[in-house]
Order: sequence, then structure tokens, then C-alpha cells
Amino acid sequence: MQKEIILTTKEHNELIDITKEVEKIVSESKVKHGLCNVFTMHATAAILINENYDINIREDIINTLNRIIPEHNNYKHDQIDNNAASHIKAAIIGPSETIPIKDGKLLLGTWQQIAFCEFDGPRSNRKVIVSVK
Amino acid sequence: MQKEIILTTKEHNELIDITKEVEKIVSESKVKHGLCNVFTMHATAAILINENYDINIREDIINTLNRIIPEHNNYKHDQIDNNAASHIKAAIIGPSETIPIKDGKLLLGTWQQIAFCEFDGPRSNRKVIVSVK
Amino acid sequence: MQKEIILTTKEHNELIDITKEVEKIVSESKVKHGLCNVFTMHATAAILINENYDINIREDIINTLNRIIPEHNNYKHDQIDNNAASHIKAAIIGPSETIPIKDGKLLLGTWQQIAFCEFDGPRSNRKVIVSVK
Repeated sequence: MQKEIILTTKEHNELIDITKEVEKIVSESKVKHGLCNVFTMHATAAILINENYDINIREDIINTLNRIIPEHNNYKHDQIDNNAASHIKAAIIGPSETIPIKDGKLLLGTWQQIAFCEFDGPRSNRKVIVSVK
Repeated sequence: MQKEIILTTKEHNELIDITKEVEKIVSESKVKHGLCNVFTMHATAAILINENYDINIREDIINTLNRIIPEHNNYKHDQIDNNAASHIKAAIIGPSETIPIKDGKLLLGTWQQIAFCEFDGPRSNRKVIVSVK
Repeated sequence: MQKEIILTTKEHNELIDITKEVEKIVSESKVKHGLCNVFTMHATAAILINENYDINIREDIINTLNRIIPEHNNYKHDQIDNNAASHIKAAIIGPSETIPIKDGKLLLGTWQQIAFCEFDGPRSNRKVIVSVK
């Protein structure tokens, strides 16, 4: 079973919690034991798992990535499309996560939520594919 | 088939080789060709694959992460729980790896071992879920 | 279904687009809906997904990794094998990606290609395992 989540982002760099949407798809799939792959179809976005209860963590992650991979740091792709830093962040974090399913539920820890990472927003029609097997 | 590995860690930052434990679960599963997903249920831990024969590599990886993501570097989450660097390291390395199985064995290269990464230890009851399909 | 891709690399750090080779294996597998795992069996190489149309992005990614993880930066493993930076890059990027398959095709976005990352070349006989389920 495969379903799409469509997102609109508001910031240039933004982490959006999609755990509830992914859990709903897992529940609808009726798969009891298996794997759930969450994949975003963009080269300037990524999927990341971490804590979302303290929303400061999202900001700490974004600030750290901005420090490690600064905007417009003599990148060659900036001469073409001016968003090289967005691509590099997406490449390093990666487009997917694969999570176990047990008793029909995502086996996430208490402090783990699934985040869509926007690194080149704001954008509409950002796609995440959720595959349950 | 899904099984849990439970770990106790001794250091604040520590890489623990869990290859043998994962191989044992793959062997018990009797799956001949498929995939093995190794997932840790924590927001301050991660799963990483690299060489473990020279244990210096583990230290080089930890030292590099500590240099890139220093402790207490004006993180907002440090005001709540004082472990922001642990979360950021876990987010960047990621909670899982998915490894092919061939002829009933993990298809790891000679120099590849699976490590549980503790970034907020010492801790007990650290959980790793191994799913074989 | 599992197949191997064998690569020869020419540079010390190099990103090689393997999307066509992976797509061919997916097509041959006749799997209509499922997952494709791309895994490299080396501790100094990795698999990464990003844009390849502007080949400058590959260079920006390599230059950024070289800046974050410089060669011979007092690493302990350099006393054994002199390639610690290669291991650290491979560990952070990771050896695999898992991509959804829909209607018999890899569900990559327009700007997403699959790259084998060489971090310790030039080398021959670099192996990538493609598993389709």
C-alpha cells in the first residue's frame, strides 16, 4: 500500500511534523507487522526523525544545519539556481526513513516524531510517499 | 519477524557494535533473501554502519561529531533538557539502516559493522528493533 | 530479487549517477508496487540521492564534505590506514537508500538521482546491491 501526503510550507527552512498523517496511513493499510517507508520526492527536502514535543529542537536542528552548510558559500550551483545549500542539506539528511510496524502501529519511541524538512521553501505541492509492506 | 536488542551504555558518546546480535536474529528468522531493518527507538541515539576492526574509527567519528555539533552551543533545547547536541547528532545520523539479506546472511562488506550510537549516555534500556522480511 | 552493480571509480572523492542501472534492475524484477533498497558494501563509500542535472551540485556536495570533514585532521585511524576522513564521510552519508516503486517504476522526483559516493578512490570492484521487494 502506497499513499501520498501533500504539504505546503511557509518558511525557507522548516520542519513539519507528519507523524499523525503517516500513522493514519499505517492504520488504513491493516498491515500488522512490517515496515513503513517515508520518502520525499524532492532534492531540496528531506525526512528526519527526532523529538517534536519541545519545538525548540526543530529550531536547534535548522540553526545547526545553517551553521554547518551556510547559504551562498561559494557554491557552483548558486550560479545556476541559487539554492545549493538547500540541495546539500537535503543530500546529507536524506529523503527517507524506514520504520518498523508492530501490532498495526509504527514502532516509534516516545520522543520520536517524523518530520518533513523543507530546505528551500516556501513551496506548495511538496510530496511525501508512504509505503507500507 | 521482529526482535528487540536491549543495551546498556557506559559513556556519554559511545558506538557499540551490534552486528553479531543482528546476524543472530537474521539467522533465526530463516529468511533467505530479503531486507533487514535495524531501528533504534530513541531521539538521542542512532544506527550507523562503518568499520569496527580498528576501534579508533569509532573515536574519530565521535570526535568529528563533537567538533561539528559542540555541546551547549547556544541551543534553545538546552534550557529545557540540556541535551540539544545529543538530539542534533541523532537527527543527522538517523535512527535506522536497512541491509540486504542474501542466502540467509546479512550482505555486509568485510569492513562494515553495525553500530548503535549512544549520544546521551550513560543509559540503560536502550532499544533496537530488528525487522527481517 | 537482488542484483549487483560493479563500479570503477576515478577520483578520490566522486559521485557517480547509478539511477539508470537501478531502474533497469527494478524493471527486470517485474515488481509493480514495493520498495527498492540500494546498498553499498564499503566502509568508505555511500549512497546519496540528489540532483544530477546540474553536475555542479555533486562538486558542491563533495567540497562541503571536505570542508566539514577535512583530510588528516588528527584522526587516530590515520596512523593505521590514513583514510579516516573517508570512513567518517561514509558513516555520516550512510551506505543505503530505500525508494518506493509504483507501477513498476522508481518513484523518484524529477530532480532526484541516485549517486554512488566514492570517498576513498580511485578503486575498482566497488559493489552496490539493489534489492527489490
